[in-house]
Amino acid sequence: MTFKAPVKDMLFAMQHLARLDQVAQLPGFEEANLETAQAVLQECARLNEEVVAPLNWEGDKQPSWWQDGNVITTPGFKEAFREYAEGGWQGLQHPVTFGGQGLPKTIGAACTEILNAANLSFALCPLLTDGAIEALLTAGSEAQKRLYIPPMIEGRWTGTMNLTEPQAGSDLSLVRTRAEPQPDGSYKLFGTKIFITYGEHDMAENIVHLVLARVTGAPEGVKGISLFIVPKFLVNPDGSLGARNDVRCVSIEHKLGIKASPTCVLQYGDQGGAIGYLVGEENRGLEYMFIMMNAARYAVGLQGIALSERAYQKAAQYARERVQSRPVDGSVAGAAPIIHHPDVRRMLLTMRALTEGCRAMATVAAAAYDAAHHHPDAETRRQNQAFYEFLVPLVKGYSTEVSHEVTSLGVQVHGGMGFIEETGAAQYYRDAKILTIYEGTTAIQANDLLGRKTARDGGAVARAIAQQIAATEAELAGDGSADALAVLVRLQAARQAFEEVVGFMVAHAKSDPVAAYAGSVPYLMLAGNLVAGWQMARALLAARRALAAGEDAAFMRAKIATARFYADHILTRCAGWRDSIVGGHAAVAAMALEAY
Amino acid sequence: MTFKAPVKDMLFAMQHLARLDQVAQLPGFEEANLETAQAVLQECARLNEEVVAPLNWEGDKQPSWWQDGNVITTPGFKEAFREYAEGGWQGLQHPVTFGGQGLPKTIGAACTEILNAANLSFALCPLLTDGAIEALLTAGSEAQKRLYIPPMIEGRWTGTMNLTEPQAGSDLSLVRTRAEPQPDGSYKLFGTKIFITYGEHDMAENIVHLVLARVTGAPEGVKGISLFIVPKFLVNPDGSLGARNDVRCVSIEHKLGIKASPTCVLQYGDQGGAIGYLVGEENRGLEYMFIMMNAARYAVGLQGIALSERAYQKAAQYARERVQSRPVDGSVAGAAPIIHHPDVRRMLLTMRALTEGCRAMATVAAAAYDAAHHHPDAETRRQNQAFYEFLVPLVKGYSTEVSHEVTSLGVQVHGGMGFIEETGAAQYYRDAKILTIYEGTTAIQANDLLGRKTARDGGAVARAIAQQIAATEAELAGDGSADALAVLVRLQAARQAFEEVVGFMVAHAKSDPVAAYAGSVPYLMLAGNLVAGWQMARALLAARRALAAGEDAAFMRAKIATARFYADHILTRCAGWRDSIVGGHAAVAAMALEAY
Repeated sequence: MTFKAPVKDMLFAMQHLARLDQVAQLPGFEEANLETAQAVLQECARLNEEVVAPLNWEGDKQPSWWQDGNVITTPGFKEAFREYAEGGWQGLQHPVTFGGQGLPKTIGAACTEILNAANLSFALCPLLTDGAIEALLTAGSEAQKRLYIPPMIEGRWTGTMNLTEPQAGSDLSLVRTRAEPQPDGSYKLFGTKIFITYGEHDMAENIVHLVLARVTGAPEGVKGISLFIVPKFLVNPDGSLGARNDVRCVSIEHKLGIKASPTCVLQYGDQGGAIGYLVGEENRGLEYMFIMMNAARYAVGLQGIALSERAYQKAAQYARERVQSRPVDGSVAGAAPIIHHPDVRRMLLTMRALTEGCRAMATVAAAAYDAAHHHPDAETRRQNQAFYEFLVPLVKGYSTEVSHEVTSLGVQVHGGMGFIEETGAAQYYRDAKILTIYEGTTAIQANDLLGRKTARDGGAVARAIAQQIAATEAELAGDGSADALAVLVRLQAARQAFEEVVGFMVAHAKSDPVAAYAGSVPYLMLAGNLVAGWQMARALLAARRALAAGEDAAFMRAKIATARFYADHILTRCAGWRDSIVGGHAAVAAMALEAY
Repeated sequence: MTFKAPVKDMLFAMQHLARLDQVAQLPGFEEANLETAQAVLQECARLNEEVVAPLNWEGDKQPSWWQDGNVITTPGFKEAFREYAEGGWQGLQHPVTFGGQGLPKTIGAACTEILNAANLSFALCPLLTDGAIEALLTAGSEAQKRLYIPPMIEGRWTGTMNLTEPQAGSDLSLVRTRAEPQPDGSYKLFGTKIFITYGEHDMAENIVHLVLARVTGAPEGVKGISLFIVPKFLVNPDGSLGARNDVRCVSIEHKLGIKASPTCVLQYGDQGGAIGYLVGEENRGLEYMFIMMNAARYAVGLQGIALSERAYQKAAQYARERVQSRPVDGSVAGAAPIIHHPDVRRMLLTMRALTEGCRAMATVAAAAYDAAHHHPDAETRRQNQAFYEFLVPLVKGYSTEVSHEVTSLGVQVHGGMGFIEETGAAQYYRDAKILTIYEGTTAIQANDLLGRKTARDGGAVARAIAQQIAATEAELAGDGSADALAVLVRLQAARQAFEEVVGFMVAHAKSDPVAAYAGSVPYLMLAGNLVAGWQMARALLAARRALAAGEDAAFMRAKIATARFYADHILTRCAGWRDSIVGGHAAVAAMALEAY
């Protein structure tokens, strides 16, 4: 078996950190108890371990290829996607009314992580389809929902997000694709979109492109962008497929990683105009796209965790098997498996602590999302929404940045073998590099964290989180064990560093934006590190209670050790970022532009 | 032009940090003044910018390939190697008596960096040949030197290092290749070596393999390993080539990076035994190999700097050209080149500060090497040797670890384009990953730093370095400028963290080796970070003096800004490592082995 889904750790995070019992009290989620979660995760694990994971290296060796406008996916992908769809996995979190399962994000997120750990390139197709479904649920008309969502949930059709153009990447105000209104209420689209994931493929009957474009005469900038449905095949009112639309894949990219996932250049309107249908109102496209993008950003964070988990498992297995050198303490007489060497354990623990910390953070964020959308009390919904929105850039930005570190350590543990492609560790390292770029680079996440999520409310949500962390510190003091007290020291120092930075950001975001934004990414890293470390501290407390109750001693002891490691080796990075942000902004602006 | 050699920065480091004027006072180096250095570097830059650099991406697209035991290198490599050899570059640092130029390492290191920045895969062939020459100079007989060194310096032949076997990577005590003594004084070798860089290729007439093997009846472990010359073609006493030897390349690896450099599996003795000649005495092979490896380790450090420089140049150029989004301070009305955005500048400055800091450290180390080998005073030689030996694991370990960060940032600056292979940024990222692995992983460097270089002398050399750093702090205080005083605060804090860690390491290396070695890599990172930052502080002082003297104001101002950035953003990482090392060792050992 090349991959084993970390079901136990996921259930621990749901039960003890995300309080799945409270999620199951939300209207509509009555069935979503721990037993359900366990059953769903086990079934998800089975499919992904047996069917999807074995195709991961295949996809790297034999990526999707382009031929005369068609894209042929890696052998086996089509069949695996059928199995995925028939299992109902595409609809897991979507409404029952459209054929979905209606499960909370708290459970759905774990399934998304498992799928991505099994095969990131494969998982991108359902991930983008989820985004398209989400956008139509939010902004589509009833007729559009009925026409397009059920076939996507069934996996007969898939969805895409069409934002980027050669001149418009992070800056969507530069989008030039144009939409000309037609007498029948539809539009004709003309333009070129690049970096379209699964923009063309052979795994489904139809592809629902969601496309940003500018209606003739619309204002300049982001306020003139609208969102359109442009199906690959036009859809008749009864849902059957009509004519081929005027959108074509003219090439796919040759990439560093996620090679099995076709990254397409799509040409719209070369033969008279691609027929599109407006979603919601004109000129509100970016707003709708952001809803879709927020879901996608959270999911990309899960991809970081997924790759980290996969890299950790591979490295740990190699470290148990590879025999080299005598341990420094002489605990083994001759050459020993390298897991006996302190630095190998330090590397593995770094990988594991970062992975579990990010997973804990993401699981807690998912529960906040569920409460924000389903809690009967408006104020509770509002608070959870604010908490979730603060966490999205951390889940996306921090989990993916650390996935570079984790997958790099994964190669490193393998030594020279890690550099050989057939070993497989290098694939995770290559795949991980896209995660800090797509769906908004880390800097874009950091701008969001600093501008919209911190400065806009004067740091209120950030400080509320700091207060919650301080409450956990009090619990650690109350626990009183050596591990808890050691974690307390690190958590307190990191939380204080965070508060100092929040104060700096609130003070400078408007008055000296260069100073504030010079530290935006370090702020994101500090905040993500802290929130993940805070969840590890809560995990330690929960594991100690479970241990005292006699539950699963080996697992709980490992959790305590990992939490302690996170505090001593990961939380300790926070002070350095604080120093750079608060005292180092002048250095970022000092050098003349022409001197670079 | 895809690459421009950083000649000015190299000359600055030689002149102001490594004191080339003092190197030029050493016997034998009288010609090695700044004018010579400048002339050599400019000629080196020309060849590498025009001939070698353009082949870098070609080599990635069309790697070396294997066919029936032969390796065909990337088109153009053979001709470029001829030009390199005919320019006398292979002999740059080697003795005049064997056809070399006899230049000091202080100048030679800069040329090595330039060659590696131009084309890492190509540069590996001369790099390994340098190692083979070095080993023969140290341990070869006069006859061996006369027979093998001149053709290698002329570039007619190349050299290799044969250490690794499938079961013997970091742990050379497990070497099994065996050597059977023959009546004529030669040996017959039998065994398999893997990961042999340029173990077979078509760029030279002959290949001089230096091979670790065990003479029949030799002791177990590292004390029974001997070093042999095994030429691809046997060499007649007059230097002409004789019969093909029984060593064959049975395959080459499919790798993450450095694809143009063939990584060979060599089979010795399948047809009766490969004829080999003992170098030096039996059972002292590891000792000789270490001499060769120390030179190679230093050179691998230069490779890290080289890739970092190349990645920086590419990213800075893209950042000046790519237009996206309005700057946060409104300094440009519409979308601006992304270099206007604070986070892009933070990324570029991180890349640049790390690169220049590591280059400064390596240049100073080279000058110490020159003094250690050429100074008339024995005590000065001894001190310089100790200083150099302390720095080798830092140059190797730190410069290569940060090359991962720098090349990753290089991709990140390019956004989505960075992930497309044709952009070229991804190649540096892939190539960099080997650097922390070959010639001893970072953990192996860290063991060397901790065991041989710190604990063995009770921290004497480490503390002497700390004293020198404190002297630089006094100079910063004396300078009194805002930049100098800001750097002083960071340097002092980092130096104190280092001293604390050295105290911890000396106290624990023997009594609690697991605690000490759990922090070995963080110690290496802290020490490397500090020594590079110290050199940047010295660079700041020198630049301020030069600026006051009216020299090259734009360059000097940029150097001051970069040094300040290093202090505020890079030196500030040191405290975190200190905390992990001193307070976090228990966490490394706490988790049960079976829980990973």
